[in-house]
This record gives sequence, C-alpha cells and structure tokens, in this order.
Amino acid sequence: MSAASPYDRLAELGIALPELEGGQYSYTPFVSHNGTGFVSGQIPKHDGGVAFTGAVSDASGVGRAQEAAELSALNALAQIEQAVGLDRVAQIVKLTVYVASGPEFDDQPAVAEGASKLLGAVLGDAGRHARTAIGVPRLPKNATVELDLVVGLREDREAPADAAPTASAALERVLARAADAAPALAALPRRRRAELLVALADALEAERAALVAIAERETGLAEARLAGEVTRTAVQLRLFAETVAAGAHLDVRIDEADPHFALGVRPELRRTQIPVGPVLNFSASNFPFAFSVLGGDSASILAAGCPLIVKAHSGHPELSDATAALARRVVAEAGLPEGTVQVIHGQESGVAALRDPRVRAGSFTGSTHGGRILADIAASRPAPIPFYGELGSINPVFITRTALDERAAALASEYLASVGGSAGQLCTKPGLVFAPTGGGFGEAVAVLASGAAPSEHRLLGPRIAAAYASGLDAVLALDGVELLVPGAIRVDGDEQGWVTPTVARVSLETLRAHRELLAEELFGPFSVVIEVPEGTELAPLVDEFIEGSLTGTVHLGRREAEDGWPAQGLAALVQALARRAGRVLFNDWPTGVAVTPAQQHGGPWPATTNDSSTSVGTAAVSRFLRPVAFQNAPERFLPEELRDDAPPRLQRRGSAAGDSLSWGKLALPG
Amino acid sequence: MSAASPYDRLAELGIALPELEGGQYSYTPFVSHNGTGFVSGQIPKHDGGVAFTGAVSDASGVGRAQEAAELSALNALAQIEQAVGLDRVAQIVKLTVYVASGPEFDDQPAVAEGASKLLGAVLGDAGRHARTAIGVPRLPKNATVELDLVVGLREDREAPADAAPTASAALERVLARAADAAPALAALPRRRRAELLVALADALEAERAALVAIAERETGLAEARLAGEVTRTAVQLRLFAETVAAGAHLDVRIDEADPHFALGVRPELRRTQIPVGPVLNFSASNFPFAFSVLGGDSASILAAGCPLIVKAHSGHPELSDATAALARRVVAEAGLPEGTVQVIHGQESGVAALRDPRVRAGSFTGSTHGGRILADIAASRPAPIPFYGELGSINPVFITRTALDERAAALASEYLASVGGSAGQLCTKPGLVFAPTGGGFGEAVAVLASGAAPSEHRLLGPRIAAAYASGLDAVLALDGVELLVPGAIRVDGDEQGWVTPTVARVSLETLRAHRELLAEELFGPFSVVIEVPEGTELAPLVDEFIEGSLTGTVHLGRREAEDGWPAQGLAALVQALARRAGRVLFNDWPTGVAVTPAQQHGGPWPATTNDSSTSVGTAAVSRFLRPVAFQNAPERFLPEELRDDAPPRLQRRGSAAGDSLSWGKLALPG
Repeated sequence: MSAASPYDRLAELGIALPELEGGQYSYTPFVSHNGTGFVSGQIPKHDGGVAFTGAVSDASGVGRAQEAAELSALNALAQIEQAVGLDRVAQIVKLTVYVASGPEFDDQPAVAEGASKLLGAVLGDAGRHARTAIGVPRLPKNATVELDLVVGLREDREAPADAAPTASAALERVLARAADAAPALAALPRRRRAELLVALADALEAERAALVAIAERETGLAEARLAGEVTRTAVQLRLFAETVAAGAHLDVRIDEADPHFALGVRPELRRTQIPVGPVLNFSASNFPFAFSVLGGDSASILAAGCPLIVKAHSGHPELSDATAALARRVVAEAGLPEGTVQVIHGQESGVAALRDPRVRAGSFTGSTHGGRILADIAASRPAPIPFYGELGSINPVFITRTALDERAAALASEYLASVGGSAGQLCTKPGLVFAPTGGGFGEAVAVLASGAAPSEHRLLGPRIAAAYASGLDAVLALDGVELLVPGAIRVDGDEQGWVTPTVARVSLETLRAHRELLAEELFGPFSVVIEVPEGTELAPLVDEFIEGSLTGTVHLGRREAEDGWPAQGLAALVQALARRAGRVLFNDWPTGVAVTPAQQHGGPWPATTNDSSTSVGTAAVSRFLRPVAFQNAPERFLPEELRDDAPPRLQRRGSAAGDSLSWGKLALPG
Repeated sequence: MSAASPYDRLAELGIALPELEGGQYSYTPFVSHNGTGFVSGQIPKHDGGVAFTGAVSDASGVGRAQEAAELSALNALAQIEQAVGLDRVAQIVKLTVYVASGPEFDDQPAVAEGASKLLGAVLGDAGRHARTAIGVPRLPKNATVELDLVVGLREDREAPADAAPTASAALERVLARAADAAPALAALPRRRRAELLVALADALEAERAALVAIAERETGLAEARLAGEVTRTAVQLRLFAETVAAGAHLDVRIDEADPHFALGVRPELRRTQIPVGPVLNFSASNFPFAFSVLGGDSASILAAGCPLIVKAHSGHPELSDATAALARRVVAEAGLPEGTVQVIHGQESGVAALRDPRVRAGSFTGSTHGGRILADIAASRPAPIPFYGELGSINPVFITRTALDERAAALASEYLASVGGSAGQLCTKPGLVFAPTGGGFGEAVAVLASGAAPSEHRLLGPRIAAAYASGLDAVLALDGVELLVPGAIRVDGDEQGWVTPTVARVSLETLRAHRELLAEELFGPFSVVIEVPEGTELAPLVDEFIEGSLTGTVHLGRREAEDGWPAQGLAALVQALARRAGRVLFNDWPTGVAVTPAQQHGGPWPATTNDSSTSVGTAAVSRFLRPVAFQNAPERFLPEELRDDAPPRLQRRGSAAGDSLSWGKLALPG
C-alpha cells in the first residue's frame, strides 16, 4: 500500500477538485456526528451546469454513465474537502448510486463502478466502501446519476494553522534517523548521557540573549520571565544529568540464585530499566524553553537514553528551530548520532509521527482537548504506546477562617500575584478559591485590586486571546457572578490580547448550578472565589467539584498546623485533596513548580492522561524506561549497572538466598 | 428478551446462511466505522443466479416479492456473519428496501415485511430496525428487490458463553461497596494491609484440598500442578505482605526546604505513592489460583491498598466463588470493609465495571484479542484509566552450535518438558526455537519423542481445544512444515481436548513466508524449530520476527559465556532480545516464573498492553499506586511513611539543602 496522501494521489492522477457553488436549498452539503459524515446527494455538475443528463437505456450508455458517476463522486470529494479536509477521511463507509434507468436497463452496478474506482484511486484503502446501486426513472435536473456518501472520519486534526508542516519525506528521514540512533543511545554509558545533558545546559545559557529575543517576539512573555525560564531549563538539564549519572532511577534489583527458595530452586535474576526507543514530545505554548525543545520532557527523554523528536509548538517556531540548531551542534560535538535530537513542525506531521511504529512513547503539555485526541491516537495504534499528556487543571485552594483572621491581606496579595503571573497562562494557576463567608477574603482582594492599576500583559497568541475573551464573557454573564476584580482585555491590531486579572465571586449554589463553566480551567488571568458558609464540611466539596487536578492547596492558621489542635475536618480535606491531586500544598500557592527529586506534577484525569507519573522532577525519567530482567546472565552480557562491580548504591531491593523462608513473618526490618 | 444466540435461532428456524460468492466489482460487501457497519445492496441471489426477477405490478405479486426480500435479507446476514460475526450485532439500525415496481404498484411496505420479519426471527430484539421502502422501476440484474442495512455493532466479542452474569443491580452494589472501601483501605496502616495478605495466604493453604478438588474438575489440570499452584499463590501473598510492610515500593523522596536553591527559595517537598482506588482484575483461565481471585494481580492490588474486584474466568466459576467466600471471611475477621475483595461473573458485567467511573485501573491475563478489546475500552472512557493486560507471547529461544555440541540431548529433553508442561498452556511456553542447521537439535528432539509415548493431558476447555485443533491444522497444512514430533489431539464426549506435544521444523524461508501463522502464539503444546544456516547473524532475526515477547532465551556453550571469548554477534543478539522482551534468559527455559523482587513478567506489545510494568514480582504493586507530593505539610497531615519518625530506610533519593548548587558537576557519589 502506498503511503501517499489523497492530495498526492490527486496530483498524480492530474485531477483538480472542482470549485463548489453555493447552495440554493435549505440543506447542508456535509453534516457529521460522532465521527461519521454524510454527504448530500451529488449529481454530475460541472462549470455551473449538469454535464450528463438523461436515462441510460442499454449497454451502449454505460460508458457515459460511468463518467457521470465519476464526476458526481469527484463533487462529493470536493464537498468533503471543503467541509473537513480529505485527509480526515478514515474510510468511505457507504456509497449509494442512483442511476436514471430506462425500463429495460439493469446494469446499474457497472455504472456505479465509475464512482467506486475514483474513490479507490484518490483515497487508496480508505476509499474501499459498501455500495448500493439502484435504478430510478428520473433524477434532479434530469441528471444521469446521483450519489451520496457516508464517510468515517478520523478524530484528529487540531489546528490546521501550523505553518510549513514537515513534509512526509522529511518526516520519514527524521523517523529513520531516530530509529537508527536508538541502539547507540541505549548502549551509551550513563556518564556520557549525563555529559550530553550538561553540554546542552551550557549551550542554552551561552545563547541566552539571542534565544530570549526570539522568544519575546514570538510569545509576548516578558524578558525577565523568559531569562529566568532559560536558567530553570538549564538547571533542569543539569539535575537530570546528576540523576542519570547516579543511576538510582534504574530501580536495580538483584535476586540471588537460591537453592532453598520456598517454591524450589530459584535462578539468579538481575533487573534494570532500559530506554523504550524514540519518543515524540509535543511541546507547550506557555513555556517556550522549560516545556519545549530542551524542556523537562526532553531532558527526561534524553536522560532515559531515548532518541528525542520534538513537535514544535506553532506559537514559537523560530525559537524551536534555533534551539534545535543549538542541540544539533552539541550532539555532533559529542559524537552522537544525528537522530538524538530532532524537531518537526505541523500538527499533521506530529500526528503522523505518533502513529509511526518507530515511535515508542509520547509526551505532551497543552489543552485537555488536544491531549485527549493524541492520547486516543496513541492508544488506538496497532501497537499501542504509552502517552503522557499534562493537560488542564483547576487547582483548588481552601482557606480556613483562622488563616484569614491571621493574614487576610497577605493572602489576597499572594493570590492576585499567583493568578496574574505569566498572564494567568500557567497550568498551576489557582482557579477556584474556597473561602469562608464573612471572613473578608473577597473584600481584601477587591480592596487590593482597586488600589494600583495592574500592568497589562500580552497573552501568548491570538487564538488564546479569543478563547479567553469568549470564555470570560460566558462566565461573567451567568446569574450570581459578582465581579471582585474587573479585569481588562484589549485586542490590538495584530489580534493579540492584552489583559489584566479578573476575579469573580460566587456562592456554592451558583458553582453547583454552573460548574461546567466555573469549575473548568479558563486559560488566562481569571479566578473564582467561592463563599463557603460557616460549618460546611470541606472534604465533600472536593469530591463534588474536583475531578482531577495538578494541585490542591490548604491555607491554615498557625494552631491548625499544630499537633493536638482539633482538625478532624482538615485531615479529611487533605485526604480528599490527595485523592484528586498530585501535589497538596500548605500555606503556599501552586504556581512555581520546583524542579527537584520529590516534585510531583501530575494528577487524575483531566489533569493528565496518565496519573501514574510526573512531568516535572526527576521521577519523570521513568516514563521512558521499561524494565528488563536478566536470568542467569554471564557477567559479560549484563548492562553496566547490573554487573558485580557496579557501585553498591545501585544494588537494592533484591532478595538474598534463604529470604523466602521467612516471608509472611513480617519480621524483616522496615 | 430471549437469551438465545442468532446461531441458536437459525438452527431452530432450520435456516442455513447461504455461501457467498466473491465480488466482481470495486466495492466491499461490509464496511464499518466507529461501531456502525454498512452492508452493501443485496439482491435475492441464490446458487449463483438471481432467484426472483421482474417488477411487482399488483397485489398478486406480493407473496413472491416477500420471498425475494427475505432471501435478500438472508444474504445480508451472511455478509455480516462473514465480516464480523452475527453475534456482534447489537442492533439492526436501518433497513432500506427497494422494490422493482410497475407503474401502479404502491404496497412496497408489504414486500419489505419479508425482510423485516426474517431479521426479527434471527436476531430477536437486536433485529428491530427503522425502515424505508420505496418503489423503483428497475434494479440490478432485473432483481425484484434490493436492500441494504445499517448495523450497530457490539465492541466486545469475547465469550458470550459466560453463565449467570452478575446482574446490574448486584454489580451496582459491588461497585458502590468498592468505592466506599477505598478511603478506609488507603488510610489503613501498612502493617495491617500486610497482615491481611498473610491471613489470606494462610486461609488458602488451610482449604487447599477442597479448592484443588474443585479446580481439578473445572480445569482438567493435574492435582499436583494445582496443589503446587496453591503454594505458589500463598508464597506470593506473603511476599507482597513483606513488600508492603517494608514500604520501599513507595519510592519515598524528601527534598529539604532550601533557601539557597539554584532557582530561588525552594519549599520542602515529601513524595509518596497512594492507592489509585478500586481496581478490576480480569482473571486467567490457565492459572486458576496464581492468576485468579487471590493471584498475583490481586495480591498487588491489595498490597497497594486498593479495593479489589475480580472478574472471574468462565473456566472455573465455582472455584472463583469458593475462593471469594474464603476471602470474604478473612476480610470480615480483619474488620475490614466488605468491599475489600469482591468477585463478579460474566463478560458483560466485566465490561460494565470497566466502564464505571468508580473503577480506577484494570488488569488482565489472557488472549491478545480479549486484552486489546478491554484496553481499548479503558482508554476510551470519558476519564481514561490505566489498563495492564498480559497477553500472548511467542518466547523465542536461540541455541548456539557450541551449546548443541556440548549438550544436544539435554537441551532436547528440557525443551520438550517446557513445551508440554501444563499442556502447553503457559504464557512463557517456548514457541520458536532457532537452532543451527546441521547441529542435530531437531533430530535429538525427534529421537527423544519417538522413545516413550508421552501421556495425554486435557486442555482447559472446549473452546481452547477447538482453537488449538484448528490452529494446528492450519500450521501443519503449510508447505515446508516438517513434523518432528507428531502430537495427538483427541476430543472426548464433553468436547474436551486431550493432547500430547507437537513439534514442527521449518526453514527460515518458510518462517518468512508464513510468519502470521508460525510466529504467532498457538495456545497449547505446540512449538516450531527453525533451522538457521551457519553464519547467519542472529540479532536481525529478532528484529525481523519478534514484535514483543515476555521472554527471550539464549543457550550458550561454556566458553561463549566467558569473558574474552569472541562473542560480538551474541552480544548483539542479547541486546536485540532485551529490546523485544521483558526477561532475557541464559541456559534455561522460560516456563517457570519465580515470584521475587527482581522478576519481570511483561514486554512490548503484543506481550502486554503496557510494557512499563510487570505482572509478576513485587514491582507489580506500582501499577496500582499514584504519586503525591506534600509541600510544606505540617507533620500531622502527612501519611505515616513521610513523617519524620518513619524508618530511615524509607527516606531516600531526596535532595538536601544546597545540593542544587553542584548539579551538573557530576561529582556526587554514584
């Protein structure tokens, strides 16, 4: 089967899709529902007229009628192209062909072949369909043929906006290079992998000024924030270098051979983790360094020993290319294969790469909608692969009455800073704050905001600005929404949005009535304060309103943190937050995610597509490793970390000969 | 609604589905997309001709036209049966009937009744449909009727055979109890969880005799094998008890607060793992204890602190209920909630439970086909969940010439024992053995097998016996397949299959030509020896023939294991096996999987649905845990393992204050 696209095939066949006329009737040429599309009846229209008219009366008319069927099918393809794009056709499911037939003519199937063959020629296997062909006495405008289609659609096609998508031949080279690089990178001593990460960090910092200038222009983020992000990204690469050099992430386990094993003689087993192979990382819009070409996902992919392919975000293509060029140079200087770090552009290329059998895992930072589409593609491949998407998050915050009594003004000020930082475009922005009625939190926020006019910040791009503006309109139009901080949105001549923070206040009842708008992330500097009546149990609110979140926060009073002070409800709240979030904070705000060994940046759906891992912190490397045990292996065939002379700290958690005889006595040291 | 299958109804009606002819046109008789199937236009074809021709002109023709419609509908059912199987029809959604009609005839609905009634008679409620009937002057081949169908398909098609599926009200109670039990189990001190596991092990061994008697009757496995399996299952529970008590599986990490952190002041972070919530475990047919109600998956689910729901395998329902009763008693004696361990029956209940939002992860041991269906369901939920399926495996073995020269007879004998053990119904059965041409391995196997007649063993059930018999027929019918050990299959009056091992030999070319039959698992005592010409590189054979496998094995000569002996090709072979398998063995056979900390039982698709984990060994517990970090948490709100007074061995892999300043120097101790 050829891997050509429908566009390639049309070009090869020398066929141009016809221009479509506007409709004069009260129906729609193409309607889809649940991934199935229906094309309205098409006749052999051409240049404003009907090219083939009249009934077929005998075999002599079949040739022309086949042409009529072919032209009608071409019109149907043009309708699909206009509505959703031919590249979204997963399968032509059903073709029904009506042939205007004289009283004796009964070879409608021969006529229908004209349409069937065209569909196959343009769409390949996706053009294979079920078919019904029937004869009728008369068709609209005396056409010789009318046909309609049922079409199965692919689920993917986000953002067709990306410029210059990586062409398929170029993508093939990228994938081939990544696959070629995999064994070499897997065999590379860990020390050399660590040195590569350090060299990348050094190069990034050496080119800081040039890179930040590009990023400022492409993203509208402030220079200081971007410069800090470069430092963060470099520190992150160095931390992963330490991690890979130390090797504890390999979770090495060694069981001695055991002649006295409880279930009979046991062989020796040595277990480590090996890289999964090429990994595709979809980078984020909001962190052009820290979650982009050399960001956290990339650092953990390289630390694992996997070839890295980054699908650049369309919001900063030039920065992505500049970072990729830097990486290519460092990789070449280290004498490593070209396939070690590569960048591709365009949503279509990203999807094609995710479907390619050479890609063995995927990672993603972005919207719930986009992440789910990609996760579904990864799961539905003939050979499914793990996909780690970090998506949206509402990040609930609970403030106790005691905390407010002690420091309402400070809490209000920290809150506004957390909501407005990076123009609210952080996955850890506190989106919902539950504060006691009458505790004065909302008032403190309003007073503070009315003081100095906050400075305007640019949102990342026009699409985000438009989504923020319409989302904000919808929320503020709800009954029961009180505006505490009236923020501004200004759209400039380039359709860029400039914003200041907006904070609203609602009752629990209003939240309950409009949770689909109020308890969902709105990307931008907006947050909601919920008034919680005195005496309300807090843990059930978590269960009711929070499906899954990256973080959950509690602000306590001094005594509430102390042992002995009654805190039954607070303990239940903390447990409820731990069930729904990946990180539980006390007396702090969720924005600002430290890159450290104990960090956890993940959480139940819809915070991530896979809550068994993290996308920040050194545990992130485990996503791209796969365990392998070696049974009775001669020393010479073992990876370095499993050999007898490996550093002792690596040899952990094994089982010594004889151990099994006391299993179940629970007498081993904790 | 009657529980009869469409096949039962066809038999009752005395109707045989017609044979289908190959198509002469460019369309496909049946195409489906997103669970909806479309059947191409069907006319009343019979025995190669059209049985009913000509238009209906008045009421006198209705009777024959109804027969034409009935025959067309029967052809449509045959198309569905051929494409996907009638048992996958959830609903006939739409029937369109075209009736060749004279100018005055207008009772097309009466004609269409012939088709509608047949659909109802064969499919019961699933045959109820929407319908359009219209008159046309002429149909293909002058047929009297043409009709087409839109069909709603079931997603699952495993075993509709299960008896007495758990009714939905009962299932609702099971799910509610599991959800209720989750917080209590999560909060249970680890020591008590360990004690529960030990108590389950003790109870299992105390009831060994009674349970083995049921298992013997239900599965046909030998008493000694089953008694050993009980011991293995009990030891496994005790090992998981030790694991949970020790707590190392929690991967505790503590980062000190750090005023000198490289990126500014850093808060304290303490990270542990918490149970994901209720887990659904689909148990296996071939290990009625070790991979069933209290088997390895169940032990790791309970060790993680998750409520356990087991979908019992239909091959041993009574044993499953007896084991569940024992577990209920132990759970009650421990004072734990009833929802701690529960069993459900029936594929439909299993699928309904997997779709329920209260279930937070799934595990499975069984066929690639069944596992994939369930994995797809888990991935396509509104809130997707992790699903750990352990599926089929081919388990390639490579024998060097040197190894054969040293011990051909011993290798042949060990091989036959490994293929025939448990009647070949083990996921680690060696399915492909690559041995050098002229090395005498095949001959040694044949000679050995021709000596003593092996004793017959029963396969697990009639369905497995039928699949084995037809699979074996297909393989042995291939050109180029030489029979080394001619095994027997005898089917008794209860449709149980009794078998002795079969071993075939083929060339590399034959393997290449028929890999879809020869390099796929055939469940039962069958294996293939491949002759590998002298000088063939072995690593590329792994890449060519092995997609993913639980194990890969190398048999070496004594000197080949020693440092210094040239072994470039063998090192490449070992690396290739590690890329495709979860366990690489040397001078041993893959059957027999030790339950230990370093065991790895998993591998790339199609060996598992998720190769980042194991289903045997203590690392299996991680599948049902999720990381959570606590930031600046007062001691009182921390889980026991994160408190300052937790045993020191638990506090690992953190980052001390000041550390970050030397990240990237790679100077820390390994």
